[in-house]
Amino acid sequence: MARIVMKFGGTSVADPDRIRNVARRVAREVKDGHEVAVVVSAMAGATNQLVAWTKALSTTPNLREYDAVVASGEQVTIGLLAIALGELKIKAKSWQGWQIPIRTNDQHAVARIEDISADRLVADMKRKIVPVVAGFQGVGPDGSLTTLGRGGSDTSAVALAAAVRADRCDIYTDVDGVYTCDPRIVTKARKLDRITFEEMLEMASLGAKVLHTRSVEIAMSHHVRVQVLSSFTDEPGTLVVDEDEIVEKAVVSGIAYSRDEAKTTLQGIADRPGVAASLFGTLADGGINVDMIVQSASPDGKTTDLTFTVGRADLERTKKLIAGLKKKLAYRKALFDSSVVKVSVIGVGMRSHAGVARRMFQTLFENGINIQAISTSEIKVSVLVDEKFTELALRALHAAYGLDAA
Amino acid sequence: MARIVMKFGGTSVADPDRIRNVARRVAREVKDGHEVAVVVSAMAGATNQLVAWTKALSTTPNLREYDAVVASGEQVTIGLLAIALGELKIKAKSWQGWQIPIRTNDQHAVARIEDISADRLVADMKRKIVPVVAGFQGVGPDGSLTTLGRGGSDTSAVALAAAVRADRCDIYTDVDGVYTCDPRIVTKARKLDRITFEEMLEMASLGAKVLHTRSVEIAMSHHVRVQVLSSFTDEPGTLVVDEDEIVEKAVVSGIAYSRDEAKTTLQGIADRPGVAASLFGTLADGGINVDMIVQSASPDGKTTDLTFTVGRADLERTKKLIAGLKKKLAYRKALFDSSVVKVSVIGVGMRSHAGVARRMFQTLFENGINIQAISTSEIKVSVLVDEKFTELALRALHAAYGLDAA
Repeated sequence: MARIVMKFGGTSVADPDRIRNVARRVAREVKDGHEVAVVVSAMAGATNQLVAWTKALSTTPNLREYDAVVASGEQVTIGLLAIALGELKIKAKSWQGWQIPIRTNDQHAVARIEDISADRLVADMKRKIVPVVAGFQGVGPDGSLTTLGRGGSDTSAVALAAAVRADRCDIYTDVDGVYTCDPRIVTKARKLDRITFEEMLEMASLGAKVLHTRSVEIAMSHHVRVQVLSSFTDEPGTLVVDEDEIVEKAVVSGIAYSRDEAKTTLQGIADRPGVAASLFGTLADGGINVDMIVQSASPDGKTTDLTFTVGRADLERTKKLIAGLKKKLAYRKALFDSSVVKVSVIGVGMRSHAGVARRMFQTLFENGINIQAISTSEIKVSVLVDEKFTELALRALHAAYGLDAA
Repeated sequence: MARIVMKFGGTSVADPDRIRNVARRVAREVKDGHEVAVVVSAMAGATNQLVAWTKALSTTPNLREYDAVVASGEQVTIGLLAIALGELKIKAKSWQGWQIPIRTNDQHAVARIEDISADRLVADMKRKIVPVVAGFQGVGPDGSLTTLGRGGSDTSAVALAAAVRADRCDIYTDVDGVYTCDPRIVTKARKLDRITFEEMLEMASLGAKVLHTRSVEIAMSHHVRVQVLSSFTDEPGTLVVDEDEIVEKAVVSGIAYSRDEAKTTLQGIADRPGVAASLFGTLADGGINVDMIVQSASPDGKTTDLTFTVGRADLERTKKLIAGLKKKLAYRKALFDSSVVKVSVIGVGMRSHAGVARRMFQTLFENGINIQAISTSEIKVSVLVDEKFTELALRALHAAYGLDAA
């Protein structure tokens, strides 16, 4: 007997037939003797429709009201799934965020969960009454509805799993697990049986959109075992676990990429203290996240070139802020390029293995791919390359690290 | 300066354009210096879609979950209208039933409002912040969402108007007021400037579906002045008021009709005490509302004929219950007929005027229309006639009581 939180995304609950299918999966777990709670997203397309209505009325809708509107999608699916479970003779009860409550901070549209009062849910689970919980939403300090941002239902599920001390959090989605690389690009990509939280976090933040980044952070800090699996097959999925649960660690577990990158290069910038602080301080004040930063060696000791990347959506604002700093930074020229892609190799094994970065650079060199910027962390090496090399770089690296399926 | 509750139905908020139109009407009242609260229904069609989904999953959906699903429609419109008001620089804040709270009893899908805590709404109204309140929904004693049944948003609006002690409750709809008769049938029907609560109540309960019956009951008992008007024109509507606000009372204010009738006749039933009690007791226990009852004189002192009407939706169950009583009631024959219509003349003036019923019977007789049953109240005379005479009866009576437009 295990305690399980099952989470189903929008495509899994897209219509009454699929909701019935989800109910059958839940019923199977209950009949196997498990204590089950379910978290669901809105029906596929519902949230987009709700967002479109708010945008039709205002380009900058009041975010409290935006949340009131978009949170309604999950309210629909929890009620429908509870009804479907009732038809299968499974006792079930729907819960909206405020009814539990799932308390969040007051940051509408991007709220963070602060606390979940799970006692009543646990009591129901023990009595074999399945709580069907609305993902994505919570209630703020003033009693307003809040939402967690796109993909937030994953976060709801993992946070709920932590709150009810679940043995596992099963994330049902329209893919059947986490792959060594995007299988749409690298046909030889393999499904991973297990992956560590740290690796998953890098994958998620680098654009492999299987799990919401915040959900992985919560899973990691609360040691919630997460399984990613398909709601349309009966195949086992990928288990996201603590590092010590993986005996044989791959040096590289996967190759991720992100097209959401834009590069800025400031040529001939003064090479003196305070210049970088001034530049990045201004961008931070403007709410712009800077990712990779490369400063070239100063040949004359007076000026240097500075390259950094931001999200593509932030490029226009970056251009404006940079223009405003022309005098202060005294750069010669500013160059902007959004036809770049960030490619990363990820693996907890690289902590204890040298040569991972070298192999990456060598492989790219052999394929004639120029590296525009590099950044590294303990378990990741990322490079920025011309967007046109995306497929070539991914396939070459996937083979070079021995990840190709037999 | 007045305090006004404005209520908009589903066709008035059917899409973003119409919601913008509603926002402009609200803004006009606010700019005229009034204290305003708004109640809205779900977008036209939304509730039908939600109900259809619940029915696709279960013919008898759990009603708590049914309510959770269908209450979501109003949540969408309150947020959207608040956003639209924001665009017009009108301060507004959406309120769901549970946030106010609007407390109801625990009768899911047909809940009754028990209490509205309006203090925070009144405080906002005084500060020119428009509360935008979800109609149709409330919160039950256990914290579950409840709904008030179809048309319940009218009731929400009138109950809210009573709670905030509003000077007026304006019900915006897709017709421009209350007419002397259904204008689709009687082209000479006139819009009434004023009508009493009692008359409106009879109209509403007799199928003239301008207002939800329960809303009129609440308006009457709390003396809430209600105005019915169109959200698509700027014409004044019909004011529903206490009787003492109408100086010149019409003997007959309107002619209503209801097609939702089915007639049962039991021939040769034993004419002894207890028979009627046994029959109507069984029907009541079966949840069937009996409307008109006619017992003919007993020619032989032993048997008689008994005729009564029920709602058409209840006819099949009535047949079954009647069959089960065959032995006990010892009737000779049971006849059922659902091709009947109930036609009523309504007017508070008939309290002080004789001859109203006689004119009705005379008019029907002159038009060759046979009366199958009669029932009367202080301010109403109803007759049951063959359905095929509906239009003829309505037009003839409308003319006979001098209601035709010049």
